Amino acid sequence: MKEKIFEVPGIPDEYFDRGNLPMTKEEVRCITISKLRLSQDSIVYDVGAGTGTVSIEAGLIVQKGKVYSIEKTEEGCELIQKNAQKLRLHNIEIIKGEAPEVLKPLPAPHRVFIGGSGGRLKEILKVCHQKLRKKGIVVINCITIETLTTGVQILKEKGYSVEIVNIAISKGEKAGKVTMMKGLNPVFIISARKGGINND
Amino acid sequence: MKEKIFEVPGIPDEYFDRGNLPMTKEEVRCITISKLRLSQDSIVYDVGAGTGTVSIEAGLIVQKGKVYSIEKTEEGCELIQKNAQKLRLHNIEIIKGEAPEVLKPLPAPHRVFIGGSGGRLKEILKVCHQKLRKKGIVVINCITIETLTTGVQILKEKGYSVEIVNIAISKGEKAGKVTMMKGLNPVFIISARKGGINND
Amino acid sequence: MKEKIFEVPGIPDEYFDRGNLPMTKEEVRCITISKLRLSQDSIVYDVGAGTGTVSIEAGLIVQKGKVYSIEKTEEGCELIQKNAQKLRLHNIEIIKGEAPEVLKPLPAPHRVFIGGSGGRLKEILKVCHQKLRKKGIVVINCITIETLTTGVQILKEKGYSVEIVNIAISKGEKAGKVTMMKGLNPVFIISARKGGINND
Amino acid sequence: MKEKIFEVPGIPDEYFDRGNLPMTKEEVRCITISKLRLSQDSIVYDVGAGTGTVSIEAGLIVQKGKVYSIEKTEEGCELIQKNAQKLRLHNIEIIKGEAPEVLKPLPAPHRVFIGGSGGRLKEILKVCHQKLRKKGIVVINCITIETLTTGVQILKEKGYSVEIVNIAISKGEKAGKVTMMKGLNPVFIISARKGGINND
Repeated sequence: MKEKIFEVPGIPDEYFDRGNLPMTKEEVRCITISKLRLSQDSIVYDVGAGTGTVSIEAGLIVQKGKVYSIEKTEEGCELIQKNAQKLRLHNIEIIKGEAPEVLKPLPAPHRVFIGGSGGRLKEILKVCHQKLRKKGIVVINCITIETLTTGVQILKEKGYSVEIVNIAISKGEKAGKVTMMKGLNPVFIISARKGGINND
Repeated sequence: MKEKIFEVPGIPDEYFDRGNLPMTKEEVRCITISKLRLSQDSIVYDVGAGTGTVSIEAGLIVQKGKVYSIEKTEEGCELIQKNAQKLRLHNIEIIKGEAPEVLKPLPAPHRVFIGGSGGRLKEILKVCHQKLRKKGIVVINCITIETLTTGVQILKEKGYSVEIVNIAISKGEKAGKVTMMKGLNPVFIISARKGGINND
Repeated sequence: MKEKIFEVPGIPDEYFDRGNLPMTKEEVRCITISKLRLSQDSIVYDVGAGTGTVSIEAGLIVQKGKVYSIEKTEEGCELIQKNAQKLRLHNIEIIKGEAPEVLKPLPAPHRVFIGGSGGRLKEILKVCHQKLRKKGIVVINCITIETLTTGVQILKEKGYSVEIVNIAISKGEKAGKVTMMKGLNPVFIISARKGGINND
Repeated sequence: MKEKIFEVPGIPDEYFDRGNLPMTKEEVRCITISKLRLSQDSIVYDVGAGTGTVSIEAGLIVQKGKVYSIEKTEEGCELIQKNAQKLRLHNIEIIKGEAPEVLKPLPAPHRVFIGGSGGRLKEILKVCHQKLRKKGIVVINCITIETLTTGVQILKEKGYSVEIVNIAISKGEKAGKVTMMKGLNPVFIISARKGGINND
């Protein structure tokens, strides 16, 4: 596919290189990006960035800001780089390593997205909470019950206003002349604002 | 697994032999069986019986009735037989062949379930409608948009009262210490009573 | 509606008297009943019985057993009685009061269903676990995240094998000539067997 | 709420004035907008614009283009105007009237969104197809089975490449100390490109 310009989130899945890694599907991804309520100058952490699709969608929006893509696998880091190059993005910094350790030297973010936590959600949220700016937003895509539970509990304890949305998507797939509906795995999206409800 | 007695529909999926065929999952199956509103003496057609799981669940209920399992594949017919034997059912007649042709010599049914139609839903419904007893019920599990559309349209044209239910299920799956929610393909269940609304 | 015989779980919602109480919808109810894996002689607790629809469906199956319907509201108790009478059930004992207190004098159950816990799930599960027979089953219908979380956590701690199913149903509703799909609230059904995986 | 800038689709529902009209919920809306694959200079029809939320989200993107909001009710037209003013949008032209008649004098669109068709989908699609530019896109949000069916059928007949996505969303709602999951009505989103698959 040749170079293209996407002006709206929800880039088609097939546009990205994904290797063998799981990927946030475009429909879930565009809701995730929406819940992050990004501005042009936002500083964003993408924790457990995987193939980098959320980083890239965020990078297209925060043109005067920056995205820090945290990913522990070599394969993931290479895919993020490839995908960022495809879209000529220069505001994505790929950090190979594991959260929360690698987060410590980074500048304070306006937004934190957690796509994967490697079983360390509690520690990650602790550090992110310390670093997150006033009225900042944390979004977590949960594919396990445990992430949902732990995420909601910790964010509530820390006084965030928490919203939970469950997204169950099925997509039509051609099977000969007919269209089968194929179910994707459901995702719970937690979005939470530091300091409680405040839309400013 | 040794021989067992199941007194309630929704037999666990893993109890059945299924070879390489798709199978109606237990949660969907028990709703399907419910919508058929079976009695002990019901005569039932199971069109596109596959592994026979719906036939077997029906067979356990219609103890004075009969289930005709229509299945065109050799593999399917063998699986239905195996599964019926496992549960010591003697009221299931397996008919290798294709609907609607093979339906013609069969006795008039009280209930028709269509799990697969091989692209011939219109013809199948035409014959089933002719044969179905007064106030009889047709249930169709639709995994394609086309089956849903054609099914609803024809049954309405013929004066049936039609109910549509969409079932989207996800099931927890262990992944190490955590529980991932895995989406199944959604199913539309059409259930329709001949001669319109009448619960008698 | 005159007296009827239902031979299969999933009695139509409109058959029941429900007053102003919420009710487990027929599709969810028949999966719930399936997960309880009832036998004719099962002793069942229905905790938070509400309108009694699960009690009644269970009562129709456990013909040599008994259902204890625990319900704290007067309105609920009256509805359970009405609904049980409609189906001429004599194996349902309605207990007005609050779990876990009222559970203590009851005989040891084979099955426990929790449809509502009034915020006391932890205590209820503690008592139910003590009373539940070997290889007994607990089923919980969760409409809140907190019930899901607490339920799964406690049952796992106590060594139960735990299954989680999420059911999202939408139903066609006539709107003039067309059929709108209306979403019901999703339900998580936890089903757990005491002493771990064992289908005997 | 004071004036704000939204840089990403999926504006919170509560930001809009909606009177008594139904509204496309933010999660569905941001997927809808994504499927429209808008550019800055797109000319867009919003047929059955209702409260205008899709028009407004589109208007924020097509800064050098134009959105024609077709709405037959007086209440709807007033709400669209209010909502457009709130966001200081000047590229939204509200057309009070009924499609397809009012579409005829309008300039050829790059994109057509159909949120409501008043039972005239077939005629509307016929006119839109004639007017739609080469490689243009039609998106339809279907809340009825009939719209889904008719939409898919007509667009396929006319040689469009058709994608179907079903979105079932539930949202956490506070109920005292707990979070109930409330189901929204599911939506089928059809997106179709004129002249078949082509991502240019």
